[in-house]
Amino acid sequence: MASITNYPPALTSAQKEHLAFTVKNWSIQHGLAVRPNPTFVAAEHDPNSSLATNAPVTLFPSPFPRVAFEHAQQLQEPYNELYARISNDEEWLEDVLKDLIDVDGFVENLWKCHLKVKEEGYVQNLSLGLFRSDYMLDTSAPETDTTDPSIKQVEFNTISSSFGGLSALVSSLHTHLLSGKPSNPKAYPEHSLFRSSEDSTIANVPPANASVSTLARAIASAHTAYGLSKSSPSLPLCVLFLVQPTERNIFDQLAISEYLTNELSIPVFRLPTSTILGTTSIPSSNKSRPLLYTPPSSPATQYEATVVYFRALYAPSEYDSPDSWTARIHLERSAAIKCPTVLTQLAGTKKVQQALTSSPPLADHLKNFLPGASPTLLSSIRATFAPQYPLTPMSNKVGASNPGLDLALNATTAENHVLKPQREGGGNNVYKLDIPPFLRSLKDKAEYKAWILMELIKPPDAKNVVLRQDGQVVTGDVVSELGIFGGILWEKTPSSKEPRILNNNSGGYLLRTKGKESNEGGVAAGFSSLDSILLY
Amino acid sequence: MASITNYPPALTSAQKEHLAFTVKNWSIQHGLAVRPNPTFVAAEHDPNSSLATNAPVTLFPSPFPRVAFEHAQQLQEPYNELYARISNDEEWLEDVLKDLIDVDGFVENLWKCHLKVKEEGYVQNLSLGLFRSDYMLDTSAPETDTTDPSIKQVEFNTISSSFGGLSALVSSLHTHLLSGKPSNPKAYPEHSLFRSSEDSTIANVPPANASVSTLARAIASAHTAYGLSKSSPSLPLCVLFLVQPTERNIFDQLAISEYLTNELSIPVFRLPTSTILGTTSIPSSNKSRPLLYTPPSSPATQYEATVVYFRALYAPSEYDSPDSWTARIHLERSAAIKCPTVLTQLAGTKKVQQALTSSPPLADHLKNFLPGASPTLLSSIRATFAPQYPLTPMSNKVGASNPGLDLALNATTAENHVLKPQREGGGNNVYKLDIPPFLRSLKDKAEYKAWILMELIKPPDAKNVVLRQDGQVVTGDVVSELGIFGGILWEKTPSSKEPRILNNNSGGYLLRTKGKESNEGGVAAGFSSLDSILLY
Repeated sequence: MASITNYPPALTSAQKEHLAFTVKNWSIQHGLAVRPNPTFVAAEHDPNSSLATNAPVTLFPSPFPRVAFEHAQQLQEPYNELYARISNDEEWLEDVLKDLIDVDGFVENLWKCHLKVKEEGYVQNLSLGLFRSDYMLDTSAPETDTTDPSIKQVEFNTISSSFGGLSALVSSLHTHLLSGKPSNPKAYPEHSLFRSSEDSTIANVPPANASVSTLARAIASAHTAYGLSKSSPSLPLCVLFLVQPTERNIFDQLAISEYLTNELSIPVFRLPTSTILGTTSIPSSNKSRPLLYTPPSSPATQYEATVVYFRALYAPSEYDSPDSWTARIHLERSAAIKCPTVLTQLAGTKKVQQALTSSPPLADHLKNFLPGASPTLLSSIRATFAPQYPLTPMSNKVGASNPGLDLALNATTAENHVLKPQREGGGNNVYKLDIPPFLRSLKDKAEYKAWILMELIKPPDAKNVVLRQDGQVVTGDVVSELGIFGGILWEKTPSSKEPRILNNNSGGYLLRTKGKESNEGGVAAGFSSLDSILLY
Repeated sequence: MASITNYPPALTSAQKEHLAFTVKNWSIQHGLAVRPNPTFVAAEHDPNSSLATNAPVTLFPSPFPRVAFEHAQQLQEPYNELYARISNDEEWLEDVLKDLIDVDGFVENLWKCHLKVKEEGYVQNLSLGLFRSDYMLDTSAPETDTTDPSIKQVEFNTISSSFGGLSALVSSLHTHLLSGKPSNPKAYPEHSLFRSSEDSTIANVPPANASVSTLARAIASAHTAYGLSKSSPSLPLCVLFLVQPTERNIFDQLAISEYLTNELSIPVFRLPTSTILGTTSIPSSNKSRPLLYTPPSSPATQYEATVVYFRALYAPSEYDSPDSWTARIHLERSAAIKCPTVLTQLAGTKKVQQALTSSPPLADHLKNFLPGASPTLLSSIRATFAPQYPLTPMSNKVGASNPGLDLALNATTAENHVLKPQREGGGNNVYKLDIPPFLRSLKDKAEYKAWILMELIKPPDAKNVVLRQDGQVVTGDVVSELGIFGGILWEKTPSSKEPRILNNNSGGYLLRTKGKESNEGGVAAGFSSLDSILLY
């Protein structure tokens, strides 16, 4: 294993100040920005929401093994296809999720939303997925000199996969700081990682980050596949970005909408969730159910939405008005291509992730979903699965074994695990030795269905320096999560269980780096920041 | 005169909200930003100076007559040369400024700084000027149907001419809003001015604004003309941006330094005035007096400065420490090319502007400084002069006439004038009927020397909508000032009074639009914002 020592290089206080000042300014100059948190700027100090600040970023890119990065990249398109196929298999999804539907009102409502539209009949067979598969480096396998840490999947995001816009800017920022451009000849002290291993006169910079074009082009492919206006007379077409009414991560979203507008000439409007029912409609006389949109700033012009890109309505807390589910069903039954559909959102639950890890003699779902995949590819995907278990028996047989519960209740094995709530927006993770007493404290054993036991991923030791959004510079132990972006457009074919894949792409990455807090068993965030990678 | 009526078009509240929201976001995404004023964000709420906000901008570009704009553009290079020649003529400057040196300690100190370096001997014959000539439209000439308002020069800036970086972005912003790009198909309600007069299917957008490249390339020309390092062994060369320690308009400056770095591969460092003496030095053993710079963030690397670009030390209030003048003299005596030299800064005083307006039978300074200029060019320059007068006799003859004082003391003529302090950072303008009693209140008639009487420029009526930096949207009557940027590099030739012009360019513009306050006689600013122009 290549050795990365003394990273990042130490900074004098003058260097740290200069670097933080440079990063703060570069960030605002290039839109690597967020609207500040209310804990930083109280609403009364910025009544018109004018202020912005740098997105929290690491001052240094983080080292990442090239083999592991390439592994993650190679798997993204297969993973896209896997989740498209899962979304397409309603029966399988229902079977996997039925326990969860019992205990989780949010999943239940999503399922009901699907059933309601199904009853009426879907009018749109196309689905768009903008996915992000998140990994952590894992050092728990016995290390040798020749093995680098491998990647384990933390989660697979099927809705509102964010930070594609800003992460490309972080790669540019770190490239700017590393590239030895004359204006910052000494932004960083020397470190061997900052030089190409083949030619020390060449700067080692983060790999090109195509997240914005990947995501925007996937949306554009759906926009095109939508075809002509279904209205009569025909209306101009547009893409709708469904957003939270108060979104602080807006510049992340604008990077993608600007690409759609400027590079691909596609009209984009922002649709706050609170305005769905007021500004969109489906004419009852039109059986194709086009989703019509009237911009409040231009009431005389009506558009027809080809794609609704969800950057909202992913969390239970967002369904806080009596109309929330009405609005979701309204969008779902329309002819607009949803990114994602309710079924695709449900495919992203932890329960599905866990179900995929089952292997013979239990059902081999992975292989069943990817019948055309080579054994090498299947084992390459499987290698990213962290062992995980339900706390209920893994087969329906009476007296079937329950390895998850066994591991969870035994202190020796619990020590190596984390208990995660299946509920979206549910409780907190329970770590290690807290697991057995926690489970014993549950009065109703039916509650076990709401949890997944997962083997702890053991990330390598690492340090970095973070510039927070309030300008504080924090140095410490960190743990990073790599996300790979992908986009896939598929069509449900009524005659077959097989979806027809129209477009499948991947590109771009996100590294999110969090502070490790020593008083937690896991990797809870003392601070969370955007990062990029230096391959070694 | 082309008629611009009902401009800007009225906005519904939804349109105004949408437009302000779009502009706020676009501004942060593209670096059209400032650090907020302390009246908006108190220092204790942003202790690390992380926050940014949109620069104050107009929501609409302002109409501007094409003939007047082209007139201003055509004059910039002649004006550059005029002020280079004035800077080069020390005797003339001394003669014009001697009254001012008597009453203005700041001008006196600048002059002494020049004398001190002259005594030792200058080692750098090259001078760089980054100039901005500011005009207002004047409607005071009798209007006919065929005449548009003409331009009158408000002032000629020879030091720290700012907003070149941000004004290019404002032109881009308004172009974005006007261009009918699909994502903002209805950013503005319709108006005939938004369409090309030749082809109504084509959007009328602001003229291309090359301010950043014009300014950066002028600095680059000086950097190149500096030649090789004068140190032994030779040092890497760099440009220094001399800046105020707390600069809120930093993104304006960064646009230029980034162009130098990224497009022209020239190292740039920011040199806060408080660090001049601590981080720069002139080795006493080197008669060429190179200005050496040690970046605090990289003390092991020493640079030699080719150009010191002053974005500071232009105002008396900045010379607030015992070392301030020592630092200015230190820079002036170095081999670095100053942008500007002390003499060039002095050439920008209002007294020089006024002296240039004198015409036969008094001295014709304009013609004397531009002996090669055609009569047409001279009258074209002279057409931009607003009538202005000293309050002292305009010739040295005993009993000579004093038309300035006559105009100022007569209520009928005073009504049409403004009294401006000659002092840099001096008192406030005195308007119209306030002038006679103000002058009579001065106990010491020698104080008259500190004032210039200028005929009021009468700008056309105009309205616009301004987005302030705190997000408030203000609609009202406005008055605009057009600035044209230029850069010139010249060499003082010891054998001749004629400077050798090495490079003379112009390009880019600034429109600054201010609110007209009805309770002031003049055009004092209720709000000031950056704007761009739509030609008609």
